[in-house]
Amino acid sequence: MSDAVVTLADGAGGKASRRLVEGLFVEELRNPLLEPLEDAAVVAANGARIALTTDSYVVRPLRFPGGDIGELAVNGTVNDLAVSGAAPLALTAGFVIEEGFPRDELRALVASMAAAARAAGVAVAAGDTKVVERGAADGLYVTTAGIGLLDLRAVLGVDRVRAGDRLLLSGGIAEHGIAVMLARGNLALEVDVESDTAPLNGLAAELCSLGPELRWMRDPTRGGLATTLNELAAGAGLTVAFDEEAVPVREQVRAACEVLGIDPLTVANEGKLVAVVSAAAADEALAVVRAHPLGRDAALIGRLREDTEPLVLAQTPFGTRIVDMLVGDPLPRIC
Amino acid sequence: MSDAVVTLADGAGGKASRRLVEGLFVEELRNPLLEPLEDAAVVAANGARIALTTDSYVVRPLRFPGGDIGELAVNGTVNDLAVSGAAPLALTAGFVIEEGFPRDELRALVASMAAAARAAGVAVAAGDTKVVERGAADGLYVTTAGIGLLDLRAVLGVDRVRAGDRLLLSGGIAEHGIAVMLARGNLALEVDVESDTAPLNGLAAELCSLGPELRWMRDPTRGGLATTLNELAAGAGLTVAFDEEAVPVREQVRAACEVLGIDPLTVANEGKLVAVVSAAAADEALAVVRAHPLGRDAALIGRLREDTEPLVLAQTPFGTRIVDMLVGDPLPRIC
Repeated sequence: MSDAVVTLADGAGGKASRRLVEGLFVEELRNPLLEPLEDAAVVAANGARIALTTDSYVVRPLRFPGGDIGELAVNGTVNDLAVSGAAPLALTAGFVIEEGFPRDELRALVASMAAAARAAGVAVAAGDTKVVERGAADGLYVTTAGIGLLDLRAVLGVDRVRAGDRLLLSGGIAEHGIAVMLARGNLALEVDVESDTAPLNGLAAELCSLGPELRWMRDPTRGGLATTLNELAAGAGLTVAFDEEAVPVREQVRAACEVLGIDPLTVANEGKLVAVVSAAAADEALAVVRAHPLGRDAALIGRLREDTEPLVLAQTPFGTRIVDMLVGDPLPRIC
Repeated sequence: MSDAVVTLADGAGGKASRRLVEGLFVEELRNPLLEPLEDAAVVAANGARIALTTDSYVVRPLRFPGGDIGELAVNGTVNDLAVSGAAPLALTAGFVIEEGFPRDELRALVASMAAAARAAGVAVAAGDTKVVERGAADGLYVTTAGIGLLDLRAVLGVDRVRAGDRLLLSGGIAEHGIAVMLARGNLALEVDVESDTAPLNGLAAELCSLGPELRWMRDPTRGGLATTLNELAAGAGLTVAFDEEAVPVREQVRAACEVLGIDPLTVANEGKLVAVVSAAAADEALAVVRAHPLGRDAALIGRLREDTEPLVLAQTPFGTRIVDMLVGDPLPRIC
């Protein structure tokens, strides 16, 4: 594919996305609020520290086992605030709708959005609607933005991660991406997998109670856990070593990944959280997360260490392998 | 057109849009932050009062005389904050890009966004990019959201508008809509009209210096001045009576509207502001606005009064006519 045009891989959340963001968006928009490239920016407002984030949603199909674009658009933005250590205050939603879209379907998706917002304890405070001609969009696209108030108990940042810190994962991976793939119906797999879409603000707030022992959080969405861990390694300048067998993957998800020839580490999640905590607080962190309904399958999966170059290394029964970021886009329009 | 599906008119900013917003979005999302339906919601954050807004941009073509989608997306969101009486703090931008979109063109539009943000004194602090397949979008859609800090000198609201108050317009109308129409190139008009896209935060801040004498501000975008004045009349429960000859319209814009058979009152603006001020402060307000580069052609165009039912009435050389909101969509995808 020519480098002169934008490709599907540029939107997949992996290497090409990173290049597009760093080489084009950051270069042109350059400013100190944007440049940390965390899931949310932090803006000072009259003494308050406000987290600010946005995500566009183009998932296809609009409904899939376990969720729909409305629920996803709320939870995704709530989660970007949550892993930044912020309590969500309010969301906005911008809709681009294709002419001819059924009104009942639109109402149902907005109702789903409202239910997700209630579940997360946040309101959709402002919105906008644009309609484009038939053929100029694929049904409906939603862009949500959100603001949150930073939790002052925790000070999070990849620069706070230290060698010896531990890696905690809140539950099984790859469920969202596989659910959406299966919903497209072009696979004859007899498995029952639902998206894990869920609001992580409650769970994240529990982790913030660890104070400075909590270093960093992220939700491994597009590009999956592999991409998130590579961003962690690069940002911290440390090697991330984890035990692949300790990473929870539901049996049916694993089976679907095998049939599809996809590594579950590269598949999107929409209700999982990765945290780095100090070694001293690791057991307490695990207990805190396991006590939450969204963290029952949580596990300590690895640790950070000094190395000649920062890599992501998976320990397997057959030895150690280097885990790269997602390259290309095996699953376009997953969120 | 069937009522069962979304139509282009639903996105035009006029009557159908109002029905869609009130009958579907507000009904489903119902919450006290959203329900005032002003250009921005107000959220309390640790003592600070934060204005929050969003807009999606689907303008076609992406470039037009006087601007492009990048500049428009920044100015539009800055202006929604400005007319809410808030100083913009930061913006977010979500991009939905069609596969195959030229990278150079994307870079140029993002650079234009950056320049507009600098001109408005605000940063694009967070962003997101999604790529959809060829044919699933028309080049590029942008959704911006913005937060601002409320100017405590002014307390704005349609409920603060009183009979006897005066109506101030910051300059000539219909320039943006006509410029975009002409850029589509399917009209053989020999006129030279540029979009008025501009950031109104400086001008709005000047007006806020009037304190409580300033009652309400709005930027008449989609649906034009006619729609904004109808929203004012309905919200205030008062008749808006204005002198149609006092409304500035550039000669070439008026000529284009005549050829197209369009009322300039219904055409979108992207750098104009309507304000309601007390009668006592009207002359001072006019002087303040005229002293600003974006308000040189400002005029006091009318006043509010009690009436049996709230209407928008235009005084013309031939008598008085009722001005309705925009009905239908003569100019789809104008912003």
